[in-house]
Amino acid sequence: MRFHTRKWVKPEDLNANGTLFGGRLLEWIDEEAALYTIIQLENPKVVTKYISEIDFKASAKQGDIIEIGIDVVKFGKASLTLSCEVRNKMTRETIITISNIVMVNVGPDGKAKSHGKTQIEYVEDRLK
Amino acid sequence: MRFHTRKWVKPEDLNANGTLFGGRLLEWIDEEAALYTIIQLENPKVVTKYISEIDFKASAKQGDIIEIGIDVVKFGKASLTLSCEVRNKMTRETIITISNIVMVNVGPDGKAKSHGKTQIEYVEDRLK
Amino acid sequence: MRFHTRKWVKPEDLNANGTLFGGRLLEWIDEEAALYTIIQLENPKVVTKYISEIDFKASAKQGDIIEIGIDVVKFGKASLTLSCEVRNKMTRETIITISNIVMVNVGPDGKAKSHGKTQIEYVEDRLK
Amino acid sequence: MRFHTRKWVKPEDLNANGTLFGGRLLEWIDEEAALYTIIQLENPKVVTKYISEIDFKASAKQGDIIEIGIDVVKFGKASLTLSCEVRNKMTRETIITISNIVMVNVGPDGKAKSHGKTQIEYVEDRLK
Amino acid sequence: MRFHTRKWVKPEDLNANGTLFGGRLLEWIDEEAALYTIIQLENPKVVTKYISEIDFKASAKQGDIIEIGIDVVKFGKASLTLSCEVRNKMTRETIITISNIVMVNVGPDGKAKSHGKTQIEYVEDRLK
Amino acid sequence: MRFHTRKWVKPEDLNANGTLFGGRLLEWIDEEAALYTIIQLENPKVVTKYISEIDFKASAKQGDIIEIGIDVVKFGKASLTLSCEVRNKMTRETIITISNIVMVNVGPDGKAKSHGKTQIEYVEDRLK
Repeated sequence: MRFHTRKWVKPEDLNANGTLFGGRLLEWIDEEAALYTIIQLENPKVVTKYISEIDFKASAKQGDIIEIGIDVVKFGKASLTLSCEVRNKMTRETIITISNIVMVNVGPDGKAKSHGKTQIEYVEDRLK
Repeated sequence: MRFHTRKWVKPEDLNANGTLFGGRLLEWIDEEAALYTIIQLENPKVVTKYISEIDFKASAKQGDIIEIGIDVVKFGKASLTLSCEVRNKMTRETIITISNIVMVNVGPDGKAKSHGKTQIEYVEDRLK
Repeated sequence: MRFHTRKWVKPEDLNANGTLFGGRLLEWIDEEAALYTIIQLENPKVVTKYISEIDFKASAKQGDIIEIGIDVVKFGKASLTLSCEVRNKMTRETIITISNIVMVNVGPDGKAKSHGKTQIEYVEDRLK
Repeated sequence: MRFHTRKWVKPEDLNANGTLFGGRLLEWIDEEAALYTIIQLENPKVVTKYISEIDFKASAKQGDIIEIGIDVVKFGKASLTLSCEVRNKMTRETIITISNIVMVNVGPDGKAKSHGKTQIEYVEDRLK
Repeated sequence: MRFHTRKWVKPEDLNANGTLFGGRLLEWIDEEAALYTIIQLENPKVVTKYISEIDFKASAKQGDIIEIGIDVVKFGKASLTLSCEVRNKMTRETIITISNIVMVNVGPDGKAKSHGKTQIEYVEDRLK
Repeated sequence: MRFHTRKWVKPEDLNANGTLFGGRLLEWIDEEAALYTIIQLENPKVVTKYISEIDFKASAKQGDIIEIGIDVVKFGKASLTLSCEVRNKMTRETIITISNIVMVNVGPDGKAKSHGKTQIEYVEDRLK
């Protein structure tokens, strides 16, 4: 799993318990999943279709730095299934793991559309 | 299920497909679940522990009004399990349903703490 | 008066006195009035024309949950006049009341347009 | 009346009619009134107590620049009454006027407190 | 140098040291430079091309009021070079100074376009 | 140079020309520089002291994905000097480069404090 985007936990990201608000974390994960999918499918129009169960294993507090990792589970015909782990950058403690996030490639009409991809590609190889 | 909070889908809530961004919707749901729990448990310190699988059944577009419904599944000792449905206010079309959102009551030390509640209460009854 | 939308007072909603910032409260009220009007008039294009005097009776602090109630004062030809009360969800203390908020129904040209409505309607009745 | 703060109308400031959202404008006005009061009373703890009726005379669209003018109506014992005009920076067209915004000076206990000021002061004079 | 826009340093504007986050300050400066340029060039389409070195001389803390001053260094053919100073409104202490911010006037095609202006103009004179 | 954090250019990140607003980009860069510094110096209290000149070489439009790269120029006694490049994730086109961003390590009193670091460290090595 490769970890890219890092987030800094700020006052506006906290819940009433003073720890990282779960809803904010889900927002970050969904955005990262969308970005990853756009890069892989080379199509800016992708939507989230399904997210498997989410277990909040640990939390984070203000000032913590977290990093979001994404891996590919499966290339479908019009979909891409990802897994995700969020962890504390400094301690490597796992905050959340999600086994399956299904992203769907959509066409100009907003409907699912075959994407033709079957494996992870790197931008540097595409640009060669 | 009772529907309270309404949200207006604005430009900053859209994904690249021009429809409601899934991450934003999850953020709204988690906040509503936290509010509902705080009201029921009469404790401002609650955290999200678990969210069961999420199926995005329909989407919403800019200008749509959605409403978020919450119901109680089970009162645990230190937890409250909720279910959630989000639907389009005007058409009543279901956008998302989540069967189980487990919220945990925490004490001043941030650890799970028994809440002593066993059934839904209404604020008007408490104030009588 | 029916109370729907609930808001959680967060750090970014506070003024320098550490209480709910009046400007944020007015923003929430205006949005709720617009949503209510859109639902009643079945037209997404509505604008705020007039707000009668606003008396801040009580405040709210971080972590408080407030709820916003809207009622109809009068159906005009192209307008809808609403009243509003904001109160603390847990204590029922009134935070603000506004006697008249005049919302105007506008056509595609942005000008006032007759809406043809004369009484409160419920979405469930429309969908029957 | 002196006009200081300028705002740029952006996509996130628009209502469903594509014009400046009234609630956002009220938020900007209340913040400017608070800043003006803090500067005059030399006390960072001030709260909004009352806003007289608000008539939306004209609107603004995306990309417009507006400026917010504040004037003093009256120095009370613990309060400061302001008037406000918001206008389009380029055309000078009036968007909104408010005759009375009553701001209250509060002490460390959050209660109204005499401020001892009786007239407008300029920071440059204070620093001489 | 004329100081117009005022900003109130709020919790969401702080860095991990509890002082004004540099990135937020740069965002405010760039917006003010853009507004100033739009007003001078009477063209809403302007972009930032260059910012000279930035020395953070002092900081600001939560609750401080800062004001942003802009002056013209030079009118180019398609550009406008500005200087900027940000200072604490109450103490007049300088927080940051920037010698050169080059803003470029662009045409409908997004390319640099001659603006025909050679000196500072005031809106009141234009409207006479 | 290692590129980590990715950002999706959204409607609220655009200037009046419909391209990525320079101020937003500077905010993202400063946050990434702060995160990088916190990780390297193992101290959450760091502040931005200096940013060398900034040349906007290319822009980005809505829907583009950009990535932010940071490298170390020099370890000072109480400071860390970084360089930064922002590029388009899909085309690798450079958007901005900054040669020197000086971040300062501060102690509990908010003053510069020696950090004792002399070279880049990786979290995985620290945790071994």
